[in-house]
Amino acid sequence: MARRRGRRPGTTDTRDAILAAAGEAFAHKGYDRATIRAIAAAAAVDPALVYHHFGSKEQLILAVMNVPVDLDVMTQEILNAPRAEVGAHLVRVILDICDSPAGTAVLAQLRSGMNNEWNAQQPGEFIAIPLIRRVMAGLEVGREQTSMRAGMVIAEIMGLVVIRYILKLEPSASAAPDKLIAAIGPTLHHYLTDDLPGVFEPAGSGRRLPPG
Amino acid sequence: MARRRGRRPGTTDTRDAILAAAGEAFAHKGYDRATIRAIAAAAAVDPALVYHHFGSKEQLILAVMNVPVDLDVMTQEILNAPRAEVGAHLVRVILDICDSPAGTAVLAQLRSGMNNEWNAQQPGEFIAIPLIRRVMAGLEVGREQTSMRAGMVIAEIMGLVVIRYILKLEPSASAAPDKLIAAIGPTLHHYLTDDLPGVFEPAGSGRRLPPG
Repeated sequence: MARRRGRRPGTTDTRDAILAAAGEAFAHKGYDRATIRAIAAAAAVDPALVYHHFGSKEQLILAVMNVPVDLDVMTQEILNAPRAEVGAHLVRVILDICDSPAGTAVLAQLRSGMNNEWNAQQPGEFIAIPLIRRVMAGLEVGREQTSMRAGMVIAEIMGLVVIRYILKLEPSASAAPDKLIAAIGPTLHHYLTDDLPGVFEPAGSGRRLPPG
Repeated sequence: MARRRGRRPGTTDTRDAILAAAGEAFAHKGYDRATIRAIAAAAAVDPALVYHHFGSKEQLILAVMNVPVDLDVMTQEILNAPRAEVGAHLVRVILDICDSPAGTAVLAQLRSGMNNEWNAQQPGEFIAIPLIRRVMAGLEVGREQTSMRAGMVIAEIMGLVVIRYILKLEPSASAAPDKLIAAIGPTLHHYLTDDLPGVFEPAGSGRRLPPG
């Protein structure tokens, strides 16, 4: 009777069934609304097995996209760098992913214009953004500033990827990674750690005049 | 007999015929390969009339896209700003275009994912890039550094537009323009005018060791 409850844990079949169910769920419901519980049900496995095989929903979608990167490992690599070089390391990790075989395949698909919106948003939403959020969480940045700073970092990285890999504008498209890292790294460092006048109010200045 | 040579200059008909021919030509041949001469022939008008109505190929494609911006006027506005504020002015002009009715329409089209690649590249290629190139030409930047610096500026602006208007990521999507200008303006100023170590070699350092 136990077999009727689903596939056995640990087999390739289980992994493939979860991947297939997740691919369906993400495509039809979107990332946010596709739950691990529903994916597990569709694959006829226990939700715990989804975590066993993929660790997290974020890692599951990377597996669906066939991008073999581990966000936790990458985050740790970036945070292990000297503080002044975190921005540069972040650019390097992103360029490495884009230049990897999996990254090249994803970007070629995007460039072909054959993608629906869900696909087009994948690399930014499911690699760059979670990675940057993890890096920010590891830095000592005021929590209330995290999402604005992350947005600025994401914009800069997204723009670099678009002009280098999607639009293929020169000289960025053919520039050596080191040149781009030298160009963009200090900007990311600035966004991650500097005071940003006009963006954040100085502490204690949040007083508002009463209306009228 | 004169009527057989084509439509009369200066009429709405002429303008519309040129726009229709240009739309066809850009969609089928791409911007670079669609010549003013061929567009004029398809519209049965003299090429001089195309220039009379639209000024330049760059302005013609903006008219095809129905984005009523004048690149020369915008460039002059930006260059009239104090040097230290050129970056901030550039961000403001781009945000103004994106928030205008025409910009909103173009961005909504992009967001819908219903566009082919040619359409998706339009706003970046035919507004942001020509504008930035004109601004760079008006600044006293070494000619050999112009395209790398422009690429960095373009990446930053493109990323901002993507996260604010296409992906609609918060808090950038709802941030007041002044906050974004305070955030991004200094970066553009840095890319436009500062020394960028590691990106450009110091003058005179171009010596190469002989091979072997």
